[in-house]
Formats: sequence, structure tokens, C-alpha cells
Amino acid sequence: MATIQDVAKRAQVGVATVSRVLNDSGYVKAETKEKIQRAIKELNYTPNAVARNLYHRKTGIAALLVPEISHPYFAEFIDAAETALYSYGYQCMICNTWREQNYEAHYLELLKQQRVDGIITGVHTLDIDRYRLIDRPIVALDRQLGDNIPCVAVNHEKGGRMAAEALIRSGCRKVLQVTGQSHVSTPSNRRHEIFEQVMHENGIECINYISKWNRFSYTDFRDAALEIAEKYTDIDGFFATDMTAAALIHTLYEKGRRCPQDFSVVAYDGTYVSSLPYPSLTTIVQPVSELASSCVDLLMKLVRGEKPETMNIRLDVEYRQGSSTL
Amino acid sequence: MATIQDVAKRAQVGVATVSRVLNDSGYVKAETKEKIQRAIKELNYTPNAVARNLYHRKTGIAALLVPEISHPYFAEFIDAAETALYSYGYQCMICNTWREQNYEAHYLELLKQQRVDGIITGVHTLDIDRYRLIDRPIVALDRQLGDNIPCVAVNHEKGGRMAAEALIRSGCRKVLQVTGQSHVSTPSNRRHEIFEQVMHENGIECINYISKWNRFSYTDFRDAALEIAEKYTDIDGFFATDMTAAALIHTLYEKGRRCPQDFSVVAYDGTYVSSLPYPSLTTIVQPVSELASSCVDLLMKLVRGEKPETMNIRLDVEYRQGSSTL
Repeated sequence: MATIQDVAKRAQVGVATVSRVLNDSGYVKAETKEKIQRAIKELNYTPNAVARNLYHRKTGIAALLVPEISHPYFAEFIDAAETALYSYGYQCMICNTWREQNYEAHYLELLKQQRVDGIITGVHTLDIDRYRLIDRPIVALDRQLGDNIPCVAVNHEKGGRMAAEALIRSGCRKVLQVTGQSHVSTPSNRRHEIFEQVMHENGIECINYISKWNRFSYTDFRDAALEIAEKYTDIDGFFATDMTAAALIHTLYEKGRRCPQDFSVVAYDGTYVSSLPYPSLTTIVQPVSELASSCVDLLMKLVRGEKPETMNIRLDVEYRQGSSTL
Repeated sequence: MATIQDVAKRAQVGVATVSRVLNDSGYVKAETKEKIQRAIKELNYTPNAVARNLYHRKTGIAALLVPEISHPYFAEFIDAAETALYSYGYQCMICNTWREQNYEAHYLELLKQQRVDGIITGVHTLDIDRYRLIDRPIVALDRQLGDNIPCVAVNHEKGGRMAAEALIRSGCRKVLQVTGQSHVSTPSNRRHEIFEQVMHENGIECINYISKWNRFSYTDFRDAALEIAEKYTDIDGFFATDMTAAALIHTLYEKGRRCPQDFSVVAYDGTYVSSLPYPSLTTIVQPVSELASSCVDLLMKLVRGEKPETMNIRLDVEYRQGSSTL
């Protein structure tokens, strides 16, 4: 493979001159430039992108941190974010963080070391204090990481209210919602607060089942569904994310209960998983593609050194009627 | 942020000397080394990893090319590959290629430009001739890309035979299998050949439904399932990948048919999607994590300049009994 030295030799100029032409910086005589470009062509020289990025102090790489790549919500998010990054000429690096919180710290280190130009994080493991000290481009998906880091999320208040109203319309008298750990500061916790509030306003008993899993694998969702089905036999309405909602339908069907005759379900997220079960799930849909492109647009602004217009982007949710509610 | 110049200045040495210490190359007096290390510590200097990789002619990055990140099989593959790469100290770059075949070409260019040290490709868009000219580390998932590129796949012959036998045991008299485009040279086509052969040996009619989709979205699988359900009303056994199998169950239940009373289904892949439907799917399971770690182990060998022991790795498949066959 030809090197920059080979090009310089053939064009009978110095390496620095070739470098100026490659990086389009500094003055080079038209005649010399032409000679260099001819040499590049003749030698089939490909400029070493690492070196070029070093010069521009950019890597052309953004990292996505997610708890688990194969979870359908994060898989769809990554899919869309990669597409959006590509439209900016950016490569997409990904990082699972379910293994240990050190992975989150490791990637912050990469950012500090300029191995990536920016990070989009959908991760909740590290203490947010670790983020305060970093003056590099970071965008948070669905998490408050402090005043200096923009946060992109949906209108979870509206989502929680829609879910509650759907179960009320379906005639539920005692409902259960599956929530995450409440100590994490995420806008998505708001949907559970509103859900419970609307239920109480309507005189409906609401149980909060706190999920204990650290991982987002289907086995964990299935275990949770089994525990719920065995412990709470008199529930006639469930509110949970797509995966848990699908696992609940599966588990309760195995126990001979039928939906929506015996119980109603409203799912949250709207990934393809909500379309898989029979009956199909009534779902509050997060616009995952738009969330991803909003995160990427914001990150690219930060990479260019621009100030974002807002530190809190809230996108709308959508109600999709399925057959799991009346 | 401190630069290498700042370190050199504080340690009262030249930049080249600092660089030698950072890269652990060339002789530096112990006393000088200590002075430099003290300066690094005092200035909280982080060596620019891009520059360091440039020196070592390695990026520490491997790229995964998949048709669609959010497809559960590829999402699980990426998840496991990222974990395996991380254990080698490698970052994982990902690339969707469903958009156009230029994306595959673009990543081959990145490999050529040394922006990534190697590529694992699960993609079938570019003509394989494009791969012959590249003398850099590439590992193919489930595709024959030529004698010089190792291929990792499962024993699809065994998988196809197991699927056929499961439907025969379930009493099927007329079966349909959903196949991919046959012009692509992939070991996975073998399962369909064997499946058909076993059916014919047993005097069972077998229809091959060739999927037309370019994308791997659930809508496409659902459309295929609807077309199959309407066009082939007398089929009592289906063989398809997890997503299509789940879509078929959903579609046929909507039409009032019940599984396994009215029809049987065997799924292929064994992602979590095969556990979602009720009834749960009888499935031929590909060991996705092992496929991923085999690809990564092979790639790391190639990156180190070692020769792989074999150019064709074949892993075993597993039969998992569900409730979609008798």
C-alpha cells in the first residue's frame, strides 16, 4: 500500500506539502498541487484517515451507550441513530453496559482521550457526578445528567395518562404497573407517577411492581411475569413495557386466562414486540427513530461547538389501539 | 486539557522523548523517564489515543456489518460480539447495510484506510468479487466470500433435517418453508435444500415460499404471513425464521385457526422472539453467542497476523421443543 512518503517522492515534493494538499490547508502552488494529485492517483494512494482525523482533531466517531444492545427498544434506537450519524458522515460505536458500570466509565475515558467525538448515553449505572467534570459532547437519552448535558425524552406524563385512561375505559377495577428502580433520575419515571395518580382519582386500586432485574433479557421479563401471575391473581389490568407485557400475556394464557375478556394490558414503547403477541397489544408508542435523530442532531451541534437551543427536548407519544384492551 | 507539548515543557525535554516514553519505544534514561512520568501525572495528561494508535498502526476498532441492527438475530449477534471484542480490548463499530450496497463498500474502504483493524460481515449485498482484492482481516458470518476469507456458520444441514422431522412427527401432510433469495451463496440455504429433500423422501408435499423483502422489519414479515395465509389455505406445517413464524401464528390465529390442532410451526434461529408467541414455538436454535465469539476470535487472529486453523467453522444447532408442534 502506498504511503504519503511514496506520494511525496513521486511528486518530488516534501511530505508536509502533500499533507497540506490532503488537508486542504495552507498555500500550495497550483502546479505543485496538480503534480501531487497525479501522484496520488497513479499510486492509488488512500490517505490514512486516522492521521487526517488527528490533524483535524476529530475522529468522526460517536459512541452509543446502552444497557443492552439486543433489547428491542435499544436495538431500534441504535439502528436509527446509526442511520442518522451516517448522514453526518459519522461512524457509530456501540457499548453494552449491562456487564458492569466500569464500562460506562471506560467510555467516558475514551471521550476524554478523544477517541470518540461525542457520546449518546441511554445508561443509568454511573453516578451522575462523574458526568459533571466532563466538558465534552454528551447527550442523554431519557436521563437527567445535570444542567450542562442535554436530555432527550418523550412526554412521559402524557404516556402515563393515556395508559391509565385506556385501562379505565377497558373497565379495570384493580391494576398493576411494572416500574423500574425509582432511585434513578429519569423522566420516564413520571409516567408511573401520573398513572398511579389517575387511578387514584378514579378510585381504582393500583399496585406498583418494582422490577428487580439488572439485565433486559427475555428470561428476566418472563420470571417477572410468572411472579406477578402467581402473586397477584385478582388483577384485571396491567401496564408494562412491550417485553413484560408480551411475557404477561403468554404467562396468563398458559394459566387459562384470556385477554381482553379476563384481563386488559397496555404496553409501553411500541417496538415490534408489541405487535407480536396474539391478541396484539394496545400500546403507548415512543417515536424511537425521532428520539434517535434528535439525539444525533443535538450531539452534532455540540461537536461543532454550537450551543443547543434547549437542554430538554420532549417528543410526543402516540396511542395505538390493539386487541388487549376493550 | 494538557497536550504532549505541555508535558515536554514541564519535563524540560523534547516532544519526541515524551512520545518514546508514551509508546514505550526507544531508549530513554531512567531519570528522564521519571521526570516525564511526573509531568504527566501533575498535568493530568491523557495521551491522545488516536495518535498512539497511529503510531502502532492499529485503531483498536473492529466493525460489524449487518443488514439490520434491530433484527433480533443480528441484535443478539452484535450484543455478544461487542462483549467478545471488549474482552480483547477492542471497540465495536456497527453498520446497517439495508439502506444501499454502497454502505458495504464504504466500510471496506474504511478497512482499506485503516480506520478499522478488521470487519465481521453478515451482509450479502455486494458482489463477492469486491472482497477478493482486499488483503485485510475479514471474517464472514454465514457467507462464502472466497477461499481467503474465513466463514463461521452453524450446521444448517442438521438444522433443516431436524425441522423437517419435527413437522413429520407432528403429522403434517403439506408443508411450506419460507426461504431467502437463493442466488446468495450462504451456508444457510442448505437447510432449505435438506428440508425439501426429507419431505420428498417421506412423500410430503413441500412448497418453497421465497421471501421478497429487502428489509428485515416486522411489517415485512407480517405482510409475508398474510400473503401465505391467504394464498395457501391447506398448509398444515410451516418452517420459517423466528420473526416470520411468530407472524404466521398471529395471522392464522386472527383467521380462527389454532396451533398445534390445525397447523404446526417450526421456527429457526432461537432468538427470544421464538419464546414470545402463545403457543411457544418449537425451534431450531442457533448458538448466536458462540457464533459471535467464534467470529471475534478468528478476527483477532487475523489482526495479529496469524493464520486461522480452519477457513470454515461449523457450530452445532439445538432442537427446542415448544407447543407449536405435537
